[in-house]
This record gives sequence, C-alpha cells and structure tokens, in this order.
Amino acid sequence: MRNKILTLLRQSGEKYISGEEIADKLGVSRTAVWKHIKEMRAQGYDIESHARSGYILREAPDALLSGEIHHGLETKIIGQEIICHEEIDSTNNEAKRLARNGAVEGTVVVAESQTGGKGRLERKFFSPKGKGIWFSVILRPKFLPQEAPKCTLMAAVAVARAMEEFGLEPGIKWPNDLLYENKKLVGILTEMSAEMDGINYIVIGTGINVNIDQSDFPGDIRDVATSLSMMKGEQLPRVKFFQAVLRAMDDLYGKVQREGFAPVLEEWRKYSITLGQEVKVIGVRDGEVYFGKAVDIDADGALLVDTAEGRQRVLAGDVSIRPRSGKW
Amino acid sequence: MRNKILTLLRQSGEKYISGEEIADKLGVSRTAVWKHIKEMRAQGYDIESHARSGYILREAPDALLSGEIHHGLETKIIGQEIICHEEIDSTNNEAKRLARNGAVEGTVVVAESQTGGKGRLERKFFSPKGKGIWFSVILRPKFLPQEAPKCTLMAAVAVARAMEEFGLEPGIKWPNDLLYENKKLVGILTEMSAEMDGINYIVIGTGINVNIDQSDFPGDIRDVATSLSMMKGEQLPRVKFFQAVLRAMDDLYGKVQREGFAPVLEEWRKYSITLGQEVKVIGVRDGEVYFGKAVDIDADGALLVDTAEGRQRVLAGDVSIRPRSGKW
Repeated sequence: MRNKILTLLRQSGEKYISGEEIADKLGVSRTAVWKHIKEMRAQGYDIESHARSGYILREAPDALLSGEIHHGLETKIIGQEIICHEEIDSTNNEAKRLARNGAVEGTVVVAESQTGGKGRLERKFFSPKGKGIWFSVILRPKFLPQEAPKCTLMAAVAVARAMEEFGLEPGIKWPNDLLYENKKLVGILTEMSAEMDGINYIVIGTGINVNIDQSDFPGDIRDVATSLSMMKGEQLPRVKFFQAVLRAMDDLYGKVQREGFAPVLEEWRKYSITLGQEVKVIGVRDGEVYFGKAVDIDADGALLVDTAEGRQRVLAGDVSIRPRSGKW
Repeated sequence: MRNKILTLLRQSGEKYISGEEIADKLGVSRTAVWKHIKEMRAQGYDIESHARSGYILREAPDALLSGEIHHGLETKIIGQEIICHEEIDSTNNEAKRLARNGAVEGTVVVAESQTGGKGRLERKFFSPKGKGIWFSVILRPKFLPQEAPKCTLMAAVAVARAMEEFGLEPGIKWPNDLLYENKKLVGILTEMSAEMDGINYIVIGTGINVNIDQSDFPGDIRDVATSLSMMKGEQLPRVKFFQAVLRAMDDLYGKVQREGFAPVLEEWRKYSITLGQEVKVIGVRDGEVYFGKAVDIDADGALLVDTAEGRQRVLAGDVSIRPRSGKW
C-alpha cells in the first residue's frame, strides 16, 4: 500500500494530490492514507502537506526501502520481489529460509544492518547500519550444480559494472573480491541447495561497503577493508548504486540463461587484477601453498596458475597477488 | 534407556536377568524397567518374564529400531546416530532439517514408512510400511561441491556390496539405479547444501525395496519396480541387510576421504550394467535425446557415450539400455 501511495505522489510530481484522491484511487479511507504518510515520514520521506491541497513528495530518503529500490528499476528477473529489513541476522540466512518456502526466482532480501553477517568459510562480515548494501538474491537456474560456482564471478562482474557507472575503476581478484588499494570493498558468499540433477536454489549474498569511513571499521579489519566512499572521496547514493548492481546482475543472469557463462567469464577477465600477476595460493581445504603466475581462468571459472612444477588448476583457494615490494 | 536394557538382556543371553539387577545397573526404578519391557514387547521383542528369575530376550523383531540396527554394527562414521521413525514425510527432508540444526556427520534417519517419499526431480517414491528400508545419511565431507555428485555412485556401490553378501548379483545402471530384470530395486536421491568453497552437508537418501510383492506395487509402477525378495524368491532380514549397507557405505566413505573417489569409481565399473551397452540418453534439463555406446565413466562420474557425432559426456540424464529386441 505504501508503495502505491508513493507511486501516486511521484506521478503527481510538483502538484499537490489530495488525501481524498489517494484514498479513492486505492480504495482505502483517508485516515488510512494519513497513517501511511505519517509512517513514511518516519522512514525519512519529506512529504509536505497542506490542509486544503493535499500532499507533495519533496524528497525521498537514500534508504533501502522497497519503494525506493523498485522505483525505475526495470529489471526482468532480479528484484521481482524486494524484501527490506531494518536489521536481520544475515540476508543469506533469510533468503535461504524464503527459498525453502518457495520464494520466486529473483527475490531480493536487503537489510540496513546485519547482526550476524557472514562471509566465506563462516568468517564474520561487518555490516554496519545504513552505511552499506547488504543483500541476497535468490536464483533458480536450470543449469547443473557443477556450474553454480560461476555465479560468484557473475556477482563480482555485476558490482564492477555498477562501479564503472559511478566513475570508479573496478578490479576483481579471483574469484570474487573487489579491491581498492589491495583492500576489500565487497564480500560475496554464494550458497546453494541442490540435487545431483539440478539446483533447488542459489542464494548470492553480496555485501558492499558503500559509505564507511576508515575509522568505522573495527580494528581487526581496518587494514584490509575499504569502501566506495573512501575510493571516491565522497558519499555515494546507496539506492542508485544498488539499482545499478541489480540491473547489471539481471542483464548478466539473462545472458547466462541464454548463452551460458562464457560472456560472464569474458567480462570477468576484463576486470581481473589477478591474471598476469605472480600469485600465492593457499588451498582452502588442504592448506597447501604454492606460488606461480596466474595465466587465465578456464571454462569452469578455475584459476590456472603456472608454477615451477607445471600448471595448477585452482577451484577454491585464497589467492594473494605479489606485492610491489616483491616480498610475500 | 531402552537400548541399554536391550544390551543387558543380550549380554545375559540364555540366562535370566532380574528386574532388580537391570534397575540397579541403569539407576532407574524396577517399575521403569517394567514399563520399558512392556513397550519393547509392543515393538515386537519376544521377552520372556518369570516372577522370580526375571527376563530373557527370546527374539528380536526384524524392525528398524535403533537398538537392532546398532547391535553389532561397528561402523566408524555412518550410523553414529541412528534415528528411527515409524512414519515420516520423507527421511531426506528430516535429515536436512537435522543437518541444518547441526546433526553430526554419519547421522542416519530411517523410517518404517514415508508418506511423502521422493525421488529425483520431485518424482514420488513408493515407501510402504515395514517392507523396505527407507533411510538417509548425513555427510559433512571436506571435498568441494563439484565432487558431491559422485556420492550417489558411492551409495549405489554400497547397496551392490550388500546384495552380494546376500547372494544377489547386483547390476548398476548409470548413475545409481540398481536393477533386476530391468526393473528398479533401489532409488537414491542425493541432496546438498554448499558454499562455493565447501559443503555444509550432503544428505544421501536411499530407498531399498526389500520384501515387496509385485502385487504390493501401485499399478503405475508395477511394471518398472521390483524387490530383493522377488529377486531372491524369499524374504530378507531387513535389519541385517541394512547393517550390511551401512557398513559398506562406511568403508567406502572412509576410502573417499583418504584417497578420493577413484576406488569407488573403479568398484562402480565392476557392478555396471551400462558400460559396453548401446544406450539412449535423455538430457534431464534440455530434453535432448541421443543414442550411442556407453564406453566409460570419467573422473567426475560422467557417462561417456560414443555417438555417431562423436563422444558425449553426460553429467545428468535418463539413460536406457537398448533392449534385447533391439527396439527402443
């Protein structure tokens, strides 16, 4: 209902629209309209009211509210449903709960803050209130579970595209870290529920550090984390950035469904800061360490590393790029 | 408590053990002991009682009770926890619920009947009361999600081994169908929850048609389903067969953890009735149909089929073997 009122206010533009007209068009009472307006103001909407003339929307807040995110989004699949929370344990956990209960493909869960945000391998993920975009997307692709890991590359490319739109030069470290000055801007955690013949659902969780100052980060990650605002030297509009990411993801996922992952991998290569570099790889499962030159990714998204002992194919691992000092 | 009483009765063997002794050893009242004995009789245990001397266990039922399944099982991982239900929606659903809530690796969920048993691709799975073994195993392997599909081959090999122990000649149709006279004896459904770097849990659901007569099957599957008892010409002891399957799975899974899937694939080849045959493959996702000779499985467990257009690699699909008549 609130989104419908918002739409009417927006359509009315610089002209007043009366409470009666809103009430009539939406088939509710004027009191109900007034109550919603009051709640929208509490959310940060600047709505002017005039006893005779009605309402004008002066300004919308840069808050992750479904009405704002939907407004002008125009995606095909991603964001068909957008569910917003002020605070949640983790958007991935909530998205998995929703997916198990049949949520449609493209459902997006976003929160102003996460109390238990998590990254890969159960690592904690810092998600302070109002300063980032912490969200998860539910996909139900037709490809086999073996293809799913490439969704994480797709998500990284989507954020990279949005960064470019906002005048920021993206760099992706394999597989899905977006870095600035070798510090992390974005965390991506892809989870799936699958049978051997097909995927029940994939949840791609993405945490984007948007307007976070260095001093906001807790001490233990201050040296390894950064934000888009630190990169740009000014705050970014979160809703508009989020829309750009969702649009990019929608476009990329459409391509994947039609043509497979080849175009995504090609675009990933363009943004990569790993390829051509001397790297150190720590195997996630076995802890094995090796050094070599990252030469390419293959059709599975695996990183190909030429070591002294020959070519290694890395499907999962922590990769670091040789620092300029040459010292590991 | 009931399993502890059972153990004492078994240790006592042909000699009476008094209610007082049981009560003392287990730190409960004699009334509590009597109550448990009564309930065990209701489960099918033949327990003789004598006013002065106490109790003797004359015969245990061939029922899927944890005390029976645990008795002499001696596995390392599979069956550390065995949870038995008279009736359940689906053991896979229950196992997934338990896994999400932290159930230990090797937990087994088994039911006398399933009301919503399901096979691959949401197909219904017939699971009548007391006539089969409908169970699921929770694994938490360290390998990557890309390896998970091979668990389904492992489960098929485990059942094949158990069949051999009971004098039945197993034949596995790729990937995991155990057939007798081209009819299905066993259904296997492997599900997983994973991140890209690792598996949260795998649930392998296995339904074994043990003592089912042809007339027991509903009309729509009567021509395609069969049972171990039909194959053997007599009923099989379900508990003992189940133990053989769990032991085989335990042994195979231990090997996989130490050496990877190569030994499982090798053993799978031994039981295969697909390799060397002319087959028809229907792609699960795309519905594409092609014909050719099944020549091998590769390291990923994919079926390699030589067609007129060259070698096809089948990761998921419905495979049928050319009937002797030569007619598809």
